[in-house]
Parts: sequence; structure tokens; C-alpha cells
Amino acid sequence: MTHIPDFQPRLHHFGLSVANLDETVAWYKDKLGFEDDSHYALDFPQLQARVAFLRRGDFGLELFEVSGSSGMPGHARQTGTDLHVQGLKHVALAVEDIDRARAALTARGVTFVMDTAPVPGPRGARFAFFRDNNGLLIELYQAHGP
Amino acid sequence: MTHIPDFQPRLHHFGLSVANLDETVAWYKDKLGFEDDSHYALDFPQLQARVAFLRRGDFGLELFEVSGSSGMPGHARQTGTDLHVQGLKHVALAVEDIDRARAALTARGVTFVMDTAPVPGPRGARFAFFRDNNGLLIELYQAHGP
Repeated sequence: MTHIPDFQPRLHHFGLSVANLDETVAWYKDKLGFEDDSHYALDFPQLQARVAFLRRGDFGLELFEVSGSSGMPGHARQTGTDLHVQGLKHVALAVEDIDRARAALTARGVTFVMDTAPVPGPRGARFAFFRDNNGLLIELYQAHGP
Repeated sequence: MTHIPDFQPRLHHFGLSVANLDETVAWYKDKLGFEDDSHYALDFPQLQARVAFLRRGDFGLELFEVSGSSGMPGHARQTGTDLHVQGLKHVALAVEDIDRARAALTARGVTFVMDTAPVPGPRGARFAFFRDNNGLLIELYQAHGP
């Protein structure tokens, strides 16, 4: 790894634009165990938004409800089509045991959209995608085999 | 925070669909100090892709070059318009000192698209966005004031 002085980053948060902020905040708290960090508003000529920053351990989730926003594109709702449009596609949450984590989330009403499968790379990892309340796909990931 | 047994996730990686895999791998290695983890191919009826999984400390970046993929939508290239379409919008990389990190990246040829600004929430955080070689916006974030 190239050492870059003053740049030792960590993944901090990801941002979602959603149709209904209150419903989405409630979903992430109830289903995934997030908690409130802060709520604020953006009021610029080209962007008015209500924002909720949620926290889960040491990472965050920034939720935006933007006046007049367009619905999520259809391709982003399918694992088979999401990658066909360039750009930022998904985030992955790692857990120690994907089978137990999946069972725990399923018991809370989270919907998975595929069987848990090996990552096609050489690392013994396994993954599955679930949907949030907006239909967004999020990856659940176990880095190493049991 | 709601305790959910068997679900103590951490942010593990984010995924990008890009126009040119080799150029993008080179950019992330040279500019941000990522290193190779694994390379593989996806070959399904609805998805053929070359994939590179890169690593930077304890988080990853999964890059996909998909046959026949569409270019990144124009709204995703502007901080003022990206949030107007619902879905996954950005990832943020946290650093200890955003001024020093920004200077280090700028010296390596990374382009920032805004002045470093306070997050409009109450946490004393500051942020700025830079672009990768595809024009994708990535957030640089300092959680606490100096």
C-alpha cells in the first residue's frame, strides 16, 4: 500500500436520498438498530432538504429528503441491472457470521432478495443483498469462511 | 441503540461501476493509496463484468467494468443535483485533519470541487467533495473540530 502522509482514511458514512425521511429513519432504527445522531435542514437555492444523521457503532448513515426529488431509478432495484449504469452502486456491511445475521434481520422483517452466495473472488467470502424500505439494495458480507 | 444479537456490522466496502477498469484501478492506487486484493470475472446471462477488489487499510473498494454499461448520469456529477434523484448517493471517508488530508491529495493531483465547509449539523464536522477519474463525487470528512 502506498503510504500517503496525512491520509489514513476510514469509511465513515454513506448517504441516501429517500422519498420519506420519517419512514426511513423509523425503518433503519427498527430493522438495523441505528440511533439518532443529529437532524438538520439544508436550504440552498438549488437544494432544500431535511436531513437525519443516524449512527450504528462507529459508522453513520445520512438520510436526505429533498423537495421534488425523483424516485429511485428502476435499475437500482435489481442486483442484475444496477451495475449496468456507471457510478456508485452499493455499500456492504460486514458481519462475523452471515447466516446468523441474516436470520436475525429476517426475524425483524428485513427482506433478502437472493440466496447467500460465495463471492466469486478467491477469498472465501459470502454475501447476500437485502432491501431497505425504499427498495434500495444493501449488501451483507462475511469476509471469511467459517 | 437497539441491540440486535448476531448483527454488529461494520462498513466493509463500496462498489462502483466504471467505464474503464484498468484506468480506475490505477487511479485509486496512485491517488488514494489502495492496493490489490483480488481480481475476478462475473459471467451470468444478464451480467458480464471484470471486477477488481482493492483494499485500503480495513476497508475495500469493488470496481466493476460491465460490458455495455451506460455512462454515469449527469446529476451524479454535481453536488447540487445528485440528491435530487433518490437512492444511494455518496460515501464519506473520515480523516483526522481534513486540511492536511486535502493538501496531501491535491498534491497528488486529486481535484476538489468545493471549499471545505462545516457540516450543517451540530457536530463541529467539516467536509469537502472530490472527484475520482470517472467524475464520481466522494466526500472527505473530519468528524470533530481542531
